[in-house]
Amino acid sequence: MSSFSTDLKSFADKIDSFLLDYFKQQEQPTKIYEAMGYGLFSGGKKIRSYLTLGAFDLLELEESLAIPVAAAIECVHSYSLIHDDLPSMDNDDFRRGKESTHKKFGESTAILAGNSLLTIAFEILTSDALHLDKETKSDLVFALASCSGHQGIAGGQYLDLSFEGKQQTQEAIIDMENKKTGVLMGFCCEAAAIVGKKKELREELRKIGLDMGLLFQVADDLLDAYGDQQKMGKPSKQDDIKGKVTLLSTLGLESTKKLAENLLNKIQQSLKKYGSKSNRLVTSAEFILKRDH
Amino acid sequence: MSSFSTDLKSFADKIDSFLLDYFKQQEQPTKIYEAMGYGLFSGGKKIRSYLTLGAFDLLELEESLAIPVAAAIECVHSYSLIHDDLPSMDNDDFRRGKESTHKKFGESTAILAGNSLLTIAFEILTSDALHLDKETKSDLVFALASCSGHQGIAGGQYLDLSFEGKQQTQEAIIDMENKKTGVLMGFCCEAAAIVGKKKELREELRKIGLDMGLLFQVADDLLDAYGDQQKMGKPSKQDDIKGKVTLLSTLGLESTKKLAENLLNKIQQSLKKYGSKSNRLVTSAEFILKRDH
Repeated sequence: MSSFSTDLKSFADKIDSFLLDYFKQQEQPTKIYEAMGYGLFSGGKKIRSYLTLGAFDLLELEESLAIPVAAAIECVHSYSLIHDDLPSMDNDDFRRGKESTHKKFGESTAILAGNSLLTIAFEILTSDALHLDKETKSDLVFALASCSGHQGIAGGQYLDLSFEGKQQTQEAIIDMENKKTGVLMGFCCEAAAIVGKKKELREELRKIGLDMGLLFQVADDLLDAYGDQQKMGKPSKQDDIKGKVTLLSTLGLESTKKLAENLLNKIQQSLKKYGSKSNRLVTSAEFILKRDH
Repeated sequence: MSSFSTDLKSFADKIDSFLLDYFKQQEQPTKIYEAMGYGLFSGGKKIRSYLTLGAFDLLELEESLAIPVAAAIECVHSYSLIHDDLPSMDNDDFRRGKESTHKKFGESTAILAGNSLLTIAFEILTSDALHLDKETKSDLVFALASCSGHQGIAGGQYLDLSFEGKQQTQEAIIDMENKKTGVLMGFCCEAAAIVGKKKELREELRKIGLDMGLLFQVADDLLDAYGDQQKMGKPSKQDDIKGKVTLLSTLGLESTKKLAENLLNKIQQSLKKYGSKSNRLVTSAEFILKRDH
């Protein structure tokens, strides 16, 4: 493993431990708990957690503060994956080489597990597990809520579904991708400015995260079309089969690759002034573009 | 209209106005927004809002503070109704005499609208629309989150579905009803103690709300079995048809009526010491038991 992979895996493990400890303190009467953990602890890369850690590095904030914030973000991300896979949404039976949550636990339990993960994110941010003053916690909740509902993730998923089979402008697709993926990555970075009480940096960091999100989505389009099915743990060319409208399907291969390079370049430029404090964020951006699963 | 009905309607209207104003400030690009408002503004009684107002009265807190808190609670309640009605859950095509949200807008939009309502509740509580210090906001978020996820509403709905057609003990049913309905009503009352910074009253008020919730559920069982379909705006005897396990189906009519009387009596006793400050809460409890829809 490269040192990046080791670092990524090590932080993902810390998030898993935090969440396992957090869940252990709760009443666990039902299968919902199992369904909540099924995707969350399935060995995903937890790239959003790593972005959060990278942004906390940038502002020289403690890792111990990044962990609960990243854990809350992973809960929101995991909720969105469970719901996106549902029969009435993208109808995906597989995720990361395993049955998707509704295939494994049934549809109602999957919906409820998703709802519970979304909810617990806000609980974690305001719990004693995050050693911050309540002012900061309230600001974190507001920012995370703003990017999770109809103006963010849920709205983006709605647009994604409504676009299927219909041509869209590049701007409309970017707006959809930003909502679906970008804003949460924006929050990963903005959270550091909130925790570090650097109000003047919130927008700057949020935008870097937003670009990371778009880069992630473009890379995802390319992976879906040209990636190795085995490595991805799900069938390839699904976007095409489902009539998904993507930047790749709209711009074509060359322009999409060019867009990705431009985004990476833009992110690198924005981070330059932070010197070595931005190492983890820069490596994340490179990884996001070059990953093979 | 009785003075109670007028008072109830007047506060429900204030909640609707607050929410309409709040939504107006947001980007409204999609049908999700319409689906979010479809149930929320359908002229429901908003009894949870009124409970909140009643608890704020008890501690002599301003109505202007109760409004955003109650609005957040209505968003959570409305989310839970939309999701409960889904085909994979209770599969209800009608609610309050209208098509349920998924029948009207489609399943994916209904799920996403529910998710957005759940999310916006936390946004409202931490927004500038609630004129409170951020410490209190953080405490409100933690309490609301704790009763909305797998340990509360979502967990209760899971239990409700898993009980169908299977005999349960009275204790198991009460635990399920508390999670499904009670804890949110508990929060309506506890929220006043949080806002009033009366830590020592939180548990006492929460328990009164919990009893209100159980009373509500028992009254609902009786309405479903013996109520007037026209007044309710939905078909009656649905619990029976769906094999729902309820307190009524387990205890029988006489014991259920007795339980309801005992609960009402208990609530009245708990509120006695507050004198006229508890008027709205006492009237709410009486209304909850005696309503015909």
